[in-house]
Amino acid sequence: MNAAPKDLSKLCIHTITTKPWAIEEAAKNYAAAGVKGITVWRDALEGRNIRQTGNLLREHDLTVVSLCRGGFFPSKDPNKRKAALDDNRKAIEEAAALGTSLIVLVCGADPTQPLEESRKQIQDGIAAVLPEASAAGVRLAIEPLHPMYADTRSAINTLAQANDMAEALNSPYVGVAVDVYHLWWDPSLQQEIRRCGEHGNLMAFHICDWKSPTTDLLLDRGLMGEGCIPVRQIRSWVEATGFTGFNEVEIFSTIYWQEDQSVFLKKIIKAYRENS
Amino acid sequence: MNAAPKDLSKLCIHTITTKPWAIEEAAKNYAAAGVKGITVWRDALEGRNIRQTGNLLREHDLTVVSLCRGGFFPSKDPNKRKAALDDNRKAIEEAAALGTSLIVLVCGADPTQPLEESRKQIQDGIAAVLPEASAAGVRLAIEPLHPMYADTRSAINTLAQANDMAEALNSPYVGVAVDVYHLWWDPSLQQEIRRCGEHGNLMAFHICDWKSPTTDLLLDRGLMGEGCIPVRQIRSWVEATGFTGFNEVEIFSTIYWQEDQSVFLKKIIKAYRENS
Repeated sequence: MNAAPKDLSKLCIHTITTKPWAIEEAAKNYAAAGVKGITVWRDALEGRNIRQTGNLLREHDLTVVSLCRGGFFPSKDPNKRKAALDDNRKAIEEAAALGTSLIVLVCGADPTQPLEESRKQIQDGIAAVLPEASAAGVRLAIEPLHPMYADTRSAINTLAQANDMAEALNSPYVGVAVDVYHLWWDPSLQQEIRRCGEHGNLMAFHICDWKSPTTDLLLDRGLMGEGCIPVRQIRSWVEATGFTGFNEVEIFSTIYWQEDQSVFLKKIIKAYRENS
Repeated sequence: MNAAPKDLSKLCIHTITTKPWAIEEAAKNYAAAGVKGITVWRDALEGRNIRQTGNLLREHDLTVVSLCRGGFFPSKDPNKRKAALDDNRKAIEEAAALGTSLIVLVCGADPTQPLEESRKQIQDGIAAVLPEASAAGVRLAIEPLHPMYADTRSAINTLAQANDMAEALNSPYVGVAVDVYHLWWDPSLQQEIRRCGEHGNLMAFHICDWKSPTTDLLLDRGLMGEGCIPVRQIRSWVEATGFTGFNEVEIFSTIYWQEDQSVFLKKIIKAYRENS
């Protein structure tokens, strides 16, 4: 088992985690606190020049770890599937402009069709935008989502499924994002993390905690240590593969969003140091 | 794929589904509607003579399909684990008195210890009460629960895990309960249902639906056809194993509990005929 992180050199925070802050404010405050990485949600870029925003982040000595999110490929409606491909191509352009080489995919699902069909459309969708991704030097990370999101957010609900798909697509521009919130319950997690690493597919590592009780299916994530996920143990499995990337704090929480975000940022750093 | 059920001869309803009704009222109304099976939740037996209640159910021509629920074996505290064994022994006595040969196990989990430890305590707990179960002629069905319940309700979250454990315990008095709500998202579901049947472990089949969106982690289940679960397809996999038991409607819903339960019962029967 790993020790807790001694410093913040591998700490990344997702803009959505401190949603009340504009990205400029987040960048300034993350940097002042010693955070070294930022993952940018696309809503944070609205109305901005993306290239300039990327430069601003780098001026704060922040690594732009990834852009969140592409995906949402499946639909019974072929027009919507085509629109999804266009949107993913746009995300690839945005990632390149922002200066990050990774997009996280929340793959999507259409509850009006079988999961198998949604899964096929996801794989076809990724394959369709792969030429643009590789031309732009942008990698696509399939993020398996918790089974409670299988209706609309993702038909890829285990790391085994994500590994299967990444291996089937067999490209250096397709890999997997491991998020402890989605995967902690899986009895095959350690083995699938190892497999993911062995195939060179482990591209991102997201952390937070599962509160007990959890009161909302989407917006009640906890800080590391606040719940029952063995974050440090899972990080040790991830690092055993040779992964040297960031530990990305991704928390959706109506409770924390109501707090003073400077206070919340201090809590994030404390939880990272003590319980990750 | 199966056709929808033509009659109600295999329809069972869980007392919790029509929670506002006392069990005597439920029995009378189920029977009048042509329902042939009832699964009894233990809270419905409070303050009653259990043997007489069993007789009452049979007088209404209802098969007592199972007693819900035993389980909740894991705890970091050895005294609580001992208390859980006592409670499961009590449940076995209650099942025998009620005149049913099946108890459904919601196995439990303790969020303050690793899932692996909870799983070991579950297996040890079932093994510990097996002598009483077999002496009473009562079978114990491990119900794998949705991964969103892995913190406190069950550390057994896939049918593969339940199959593994039932096969390890290797007793005619231990098997598995398949509930579409918990398992519908699993890409290996068809294969694991087949395996469950091949080992003679498929002891119960529960139905309802996953609403999209679902607004509560526990109390927002839907009627069959109201959500995205392919209930009929899953039933066809269950029946392909040779399963001839009841289709048990188990719905926790604050919305439906607020309705006139006679109206709700009509909806259950309509949903059963049309979407199961």
